[in-house]
Amino acid sequence: MSDGVTLEKDGAIATVILSNPKRLNAMTPKMWQELKSCMDQASSDDDIRCVVLRGDGQNFVSGADISVFDRERADGAQAREYGERTHAAIASVRGCRHPTIALIEGVCVGGGMEIASVCDIRVCGESSRFGITSNRLGLAYGHEELHDLIAICGRAFTLEIMLEGRVFGAEEAAAKGFLHRIVADTEVADEAFERARHIASRAPLANRWHKAAILRLENPAPISQDDADSGFDLFDSEDYREGVRAFMEKRTAEFNGR
Amino acid sequence: MSDGVTLEKDGAIATVILSNPKRLNAMTPKMWQELKSCMDQASSDDDIRCVVLRGDGQNFVSGADISVFDRERADGAQAREYGERTHAAIASVRGCRHPTIALIEGVCVGGGMEIASVCDIRVCGESSRFGITSNRLGLAYGHEELHDLIAICGRAFTLEIMLEGRVFGAEEAAAKGFLHRIVADTEVADEAFERARHIASRAPLANRWHKAAILRLENPAPISQDDADSGFDLFDSEDYREGVRAFMEKRTAEFNGR
Amino acid sequence: MSDGVTLEKDGAIATVILSNPKRLNAMTPKMWQELKSCMDQASSDDDIRCVVLRGDGQNFVSGADISVFDRERADGAQAREYGERTHAAIASVRGCRHPTIALIEGVCVGGGMEIASVCDIRVCGESSRFGITSNRLGLAYGHEELHDLIAICGRAFTLEIMLEGRVFGAEEAAAKGFLHRIVADTEVADEAFERARHIASRAPLANRWHKAAILRLENPAPISQDDADSGFDLFDSEDYREGVRAFMEKRTAEFNGR
Repeated sequence: MSDGVTLEKDGAIATVILSNPKRLNAMTPKMWQELKSCMDQASSDDDIRCVVLRGDGQNFVSGADISVFDRERADGAQAREYGERTHAAIASVRGCRHPTIALIEGVCVGGGMEIASVCDIRVCGESSRFGITSNRLGLAYGHEELHDLIAICGRAFTLEIMLEGRVFGAEEAAAKGFLHRIVADTEVADEAFERARHIASRAPLANRWHKAAILRLENPAPISQDDADSGFDLFDSEDYREGVRAFMEKRTAEFNGR
Repeated sequence: MSDGVTLEKDGAIATVILSNPKRLNAMTPKMWQELKSCMDQASSDDDIRCVVLRGDGQNFVSGADISVFDRERADGAQAREYGERTHAAIASVRGCRHPTIALIEGVCVGGGMEIASVCDIRVCGESSRFGITSNRLGLAYGHEELHDLIAICGRAFTLEIMLEGRVFGAEEAAAKGFLHRIVADTEVADEAFERARHIASRAPLANRWHKAAILRLENPAPISQDDADSGFDLFDSEDYREGVRAFMEKRTAEFNGR
Repeated sequence: MSDGVTLEKDGAIATVILSNPKRLNAMTPKMWQELKSCMDQASSDDDIRCVVLRGDGQNFVSGADISVFDRERADGAQAREYGERTHAAIASVRGCRHPTIALIEGVCVGGGMEIASVCDIRVCGESSRFGITSNRLGLAYGHEELHDLIAICGRAFTLEIMLEGRVFGAEEAAAKGFLHRIVADTEVADEAFERARHIASRAPLANRWHKAAILRLENPAPISQDDADSGFDLFDSEDYREGVRAFMEKRTAEFNGR
């Protein structure tokens, strides 16, 4: 078996590797399920402060594995089942309790762009390629995944991406607001892990709270008293006291996540 | 009569021409009504796969025809009636069932920017000019049209456009996120129609569904089961089967819109 | 006492000066209260057509004054009280009846970026510095202030700003959509006041209405008949009649705000 998703942990930083190198890491049904397992495991691990998602080898993810579509996604009924699996995986990335970074090398198309769009930060190489080509097959993307694209790229660029269905380069992806940084192809991993280490050095409770609050605000329901109160709880944490003390003593704070 | 809006059809591509060349295609009340008729006709035509909107001659649209305001938009009561006509026309462009492309040459100001903002893709020439100068007259834009600007340009640039009421160039419009492509003035039509032909070559049901879904998501009401189900219907289409088959056979798919 | 916020008026243009120069204009609790007073005073003044907010000396605002945190924002209960004051001040800037311009020189970090984010237009110098470093202390930003950032910069850049907590330059702030114009450090005041005079020359009722409508649209509640009607009222104003007359007579309109 050469397709699978694995989780590696190095101190406070976890790396999720999407692997199906013979097909440029196309996502098989098995991989969507394993992606969800890995993300759930990372979310429940208090010691993790940042999760990096990457492909195996020189590509991120080339999309869904279309070679199984005529057996496993052949009509509306199968598509519904297939969709439940991918939606659950995408939701597990979007809702990851920790900050996430998409380390994008090479191809980042279709399901790959979907996975990248629910990471918090996207770093790629100069020759990376992006796009969602669902109108080449004639299939429909899900509302939730369209919502993610709109939240990142706005109405105008989401319409262009979906209605043209082109594959485009890193510069164009950046102009659409999709990317946080383009670096030389050989430096993508360095850039992504440097950002991961930096994020891991900051107060983890604050990062988790801000990530959850930013996504919460995309729900049009009014902010409740409980939502608001959850922010004030941070001021009772050990980490906040350490943060203020370190500031006054002009030293770097050491956070423990409590 | 030199003012009017016409619809031309060339295969799967329709072109809507906004014509009042003596006034740089300023929109008269008659033209707003004809624009709605043309868009409704295009929307109901199953054979169309892309609609291009353009002005007659070297300009897109210079705005509403202000010379009629002291007779037909002279106070709040008249403005309400006048507004019903323009809102209906704008809604017919925004809600067009097919992908739409604004082919923008020269002046694209006021009502012209409004029309362009409800097209899906905007291509213009280097010397095109944009802006909404309603605070030069002291009138109010409608909430729905402000919503379109916010969906495209965000809060910050919408505030600047409305509060300064300046006319600005293509580079600034692109920096505000309003444009998909700036080309040489002589190449705008080529660029727009090349994109139209490309869009027309892709699965039309998928394009219609994605366009409707992206606009639906701007409504804060939760996505219903029917909304979600409508996406799965595409997997039962002839075009989807053709798309997957063509992919496996490494050939270009031929879609028929069923 | 060297810390305070003052309001100066010069014709139709008001300037609010945030002053605590020994601490790069860090906002003390007293300053948050005075900011609200100044903004409320400006909002209630019919003669004002634009408000410029700036720091005292070569900086905008370096953030909240952290030196008081171990006494006045030491736990959740105190943070709630402290938050009420800052939220009220921020709300008074966001809701100012007149257009507002942030004149940003030097440091614009933390509470400074918060204040700037609720101004309508942001102009800064080449060497200005931006960022929100709350994860260095471990505290939580408020939902409303996160909402402002999302409305301006979108989901992706808001996540990056909050999760990395870095201080960054003007070019990066512009790439995130936060800025309307970067000029040479020595020209920021000229640029800001030129824009203020320009805005003040346009119809004030239209500007107030558009500002209120743009912010109203961020509330997911449907636009009511009263909301819509308020726009038509402008067509009954003296200023609208003057605007149309001046257009027909090819002269500059003189608006009186009635």
